[in-house]
Amino acid sequence: MSAPKQERSRATRQRLLDATVACLADHGWSGATTTLIAERAGVSRGAQLHHYPTRAALVMDAVEHLAHRRAAELRAEAATLTATDPDERLDRVLALLAAAFTGPLYVAALELWVAARTDTDLRDALLPLEQRLGRDMHRLAVDLLGVDESRPGVREAVQASLDLLRGLGVANLLTDDSERRARLLATWRQQFAALLTAAVRSD
Amino acid sequence: MSAPKQERSRATRQRLLDATVACLADHGWSGATTTLIAERAGVSRGAQLHHYPTRAALVMDAVEHLAHRRAAELRAEAATLTATDPDERLDRVLALLAAAFTGPLYVAALELWVAARTDTDLRDALLPLEQRLGRDMHRLAVDLLGVDESRPGVREAVQASLDLLRGLGVANLLTDDSERRARLLATWRQQFAALLTAAVRSD
Repeated sequence: MSAPKQERSRATRQRLLDATVACLADHGWSGATTTLIAERAGVSRGAQLHHYPTRAALVMDAVEHLAHRRAAELRAEAATLTATDPDERLDRVLALLAAAFTGPLYVAALELWVAARTDTDLRDALLPLEQRLGRDMHRLAVDLLGVDESRPGVREAVQASLDLLRGLGVANLLTDDSERRARLLATWRQQFAALLTAAVRSD
Repeated sequence: MSAPKQERSRATRQRLLDATVACLADHGWSGATTTLIAERAGVSRGAQLHHYPTRAALVMDAVEHLAHRRAAELRAEAATLTATDPDERLDRVLALLAAAFTGPLYVAALELWVAARTDTDLRDALLPLEQRLGRDMHRLAVDLLGVDESRPGVREAVQASLDLLRGLGVANLLTDDSERRARLLATWRQQFAALLTAAVRSD
């Protein structure tokens, strides 16, 4: 394939993946048909089928691809944090992570996960992706928080933070829960900081 | 209506509500059709329509009714806890609550919540129920944990526990996450106990 053709092919895939997540977020699993996704991406059905023969392949690639892109964006945003006070930095990082669990990518992923619960083929295909994304998100959180997982209790505290954020994402599905979430994360930040201090003390 | 007729009517509704949650848990929102629910309940379509003219009315009544029944069961189970050691009691109560966030009722509710995200009519109908269930679950958690919410920080700690359990329920959708969950809740129990102690100290 010639270089310009490869470039066009890459751009087509990119538009399909963006459109897939947007359709899942706006119309849910049952509403995000391949026809609607192709329309939204401005891509012909033929080109769509050439790149992604099945809806499941398209949807899973979309969630994985955009999770990686979102992780890269989060790393870039975290790198610009100028706060030198550790508590303030922790606040900002938790807010960045919380945003990742309330945005379109989270609801798109949740649509996929809930659909896979009662669809055996989709579930089997999704399990390796769930493992990869889970590991990547944990690694991202450890890096952004700047914590040392070799200290006792730190790994569990990071896990609990991510499970808490996952739950806050569910609490935000139907209504804007941002005020309650901000208060709760302020309390959680203190807990988390206390736990890190305890972990350091037990060295 | 005569007393035996009222009793039959109540039993029919009960079977419909149980069948609705079972169908949502087993087949998801799109698979839980009114036909399938009537079949599973062993109730005629006519009787079903008499009690619940719309699928949304049936599904919401089912989730609310069974949430109340589950709450009553949790209170009864908690009343039989014989542990007098506060830490052990906290472990048991957290395990009881965690079970409520991983069982069929939680996945049925999640199916409903996710469907309502992209269905305006369903969402409008569901919002008051979400508020009621949220308040009831918070009250239940406060009672079972035996904590005093007038102490600073306690309310936020209970909320964080419920959001954490909500997130652990999502993490359990596709795979059995019980081992990791048990480890994580053991850590969380220590955090929670420390927070209660801090709240007492700040009195």
